[in-house]
Amino acid sequence: MNRMQLARLLDHTLVAANATQADITALCDEAVAHGIGCVAVNSVWAPYCARSLSGKGVTVCACVGFPLGAATARVKTEEAREAVRYGAAEIEMVISIGALRSGFPDFVEKEIAMVVKGVPGVPVKAILETGFLTDAEKDQACRIAVKAGAAFVSTATGYGRSGATVDDVRIMRRVVGNRIGVKAAGGIRSYAEALHFLQAGATRIGSSAGVAILDEAPER
Amino acid sequence: MNRMQLARLLDHTLVAANATQADITALCDEAVAHGIGCVAVNSVWAPYCARSLSGKGVTVCACVGFPLGAATARVKTEEAREAVRYGAAEIEMVISIGALRSGFPDFVEKEIAMVVKGVPGVPVKAILETGFLTDAEKDQACRIAVKAGAAFVSTATGYGRSGATVDDVRIMRRVVGNRIGVKAAGGIRSYAEALHFLQAGATRIGSSAGVAILDEAPER
Repeated sequence: MNRMQLARLLDHTLVAANATQADITALCDEAVAHGIGCVAVNSVWAPYCARSLSGKGVTVCACVGFPLGAATARVKTEEAREAVRYGAAEIEMVISIGALRSGFPDFVEKEIAMVVKGVPGVPVKAILETGFLTDAEKDQACRIAVKAGAAFVSTATGYGRSGATVDDVRIMRRVVGNRIGVKAAGGIRSYAEALHFLQAGATRIGSSAGVAILDEAPER
Repeated sequence: MNRMQLARLLDHTLVAANATQADITALCDEAVAHGIGCVAVNSVWAPYCARSLSGKGVTVCACVGFPLGAATARVKTEEAREAVRYGAAEIEMVISIGALRSGFPDFVEKEIAMVVKGVPGVPVKAILETGFLTDAEKDQACRIAVKAGAAFVSTATGYGRSGATVDDVRIMRRVVGNRIGVKAAGGIRSYAEALHFLQAGATRIGSSAGVAILDEAPER
């Protein structure tokens, strides 16, 4: 996979609490300069990114309920709706990990469905935070996400117990089949790692090291 | 300070993404058993805690915009309002650290004021996440919080670069005077530490080790 092809699959990510407007500006500029498909930011920055990137071929993904997934469905939905109103064209939400682990899969299905319905036509990625889940819970979360209308299942926030693992991506792809996308995110920092995740079934790579990854990719 | 006095100043805290209902139940039970004044939880758990603790003399504090502070003012306000509607009697919000560091103090003042106005009569604690701030920014954030009507300034989320420090509490108390409270939170795990923070000017202690701290406190 060459540099340009990989760039289109990247979510160029900056979700640090202390990111400044200058940092976010640099993220957007890098995305444009490298042909990156999408920037992923905390929702407070989505309006600024959408204005900065208007007409430049880079999608803005707003992270909601991030990174703990421990806001209510209503709040996650409002957060998603507001971000979309200001120009976000993708949403990435963290599921209620605690609810899933407490044996309330319906709660999680309903919250994903509520966010999905709240932003019609906008792809919603559901972050499972796999580092906190058993394999059975990962399987269950993937089924729920498909049923609720998510466009992607995503591995990790980068704030949880662990980042993306190739094994997790394999599980996720096996469960969701070709019905929805699989995003690998959390600790991916090299071209070789990105390729491993893509070969395991990921169709999107999230990383805060997007430029370094692309620098390692072959030009053609 | 004896055990019972200290217990009233404690925010017994569980804000892990993977906390289950059983974990939250245990937190509430411990608060009741030890005479702890307040439990602090992620907002999705606030309704459950409020139901569980109704009439038992324990306040429920809902954390909003937690832990990155990177949702919009409107979303933080909605999150606070919903939590209060379901029984939360205190709100703890993380300020927009990135906005403060980008030189937009007005943005931060407005967001605190919006949350404060959104939940009339409910004390709002503003978490500054001091580990990301210079001393000048800590000073500025404290002034803003007082002006915007916060009831407390709070040190840290436990998810930032560092936890509470005694020096930070001294700065915060010096700036806010006796106008509002100062909460020390982030990494406090012993009675001796809690005492240091109280002596430095804290009037509330947040910890996930509340029971261990109280066990070390003298009974009278």
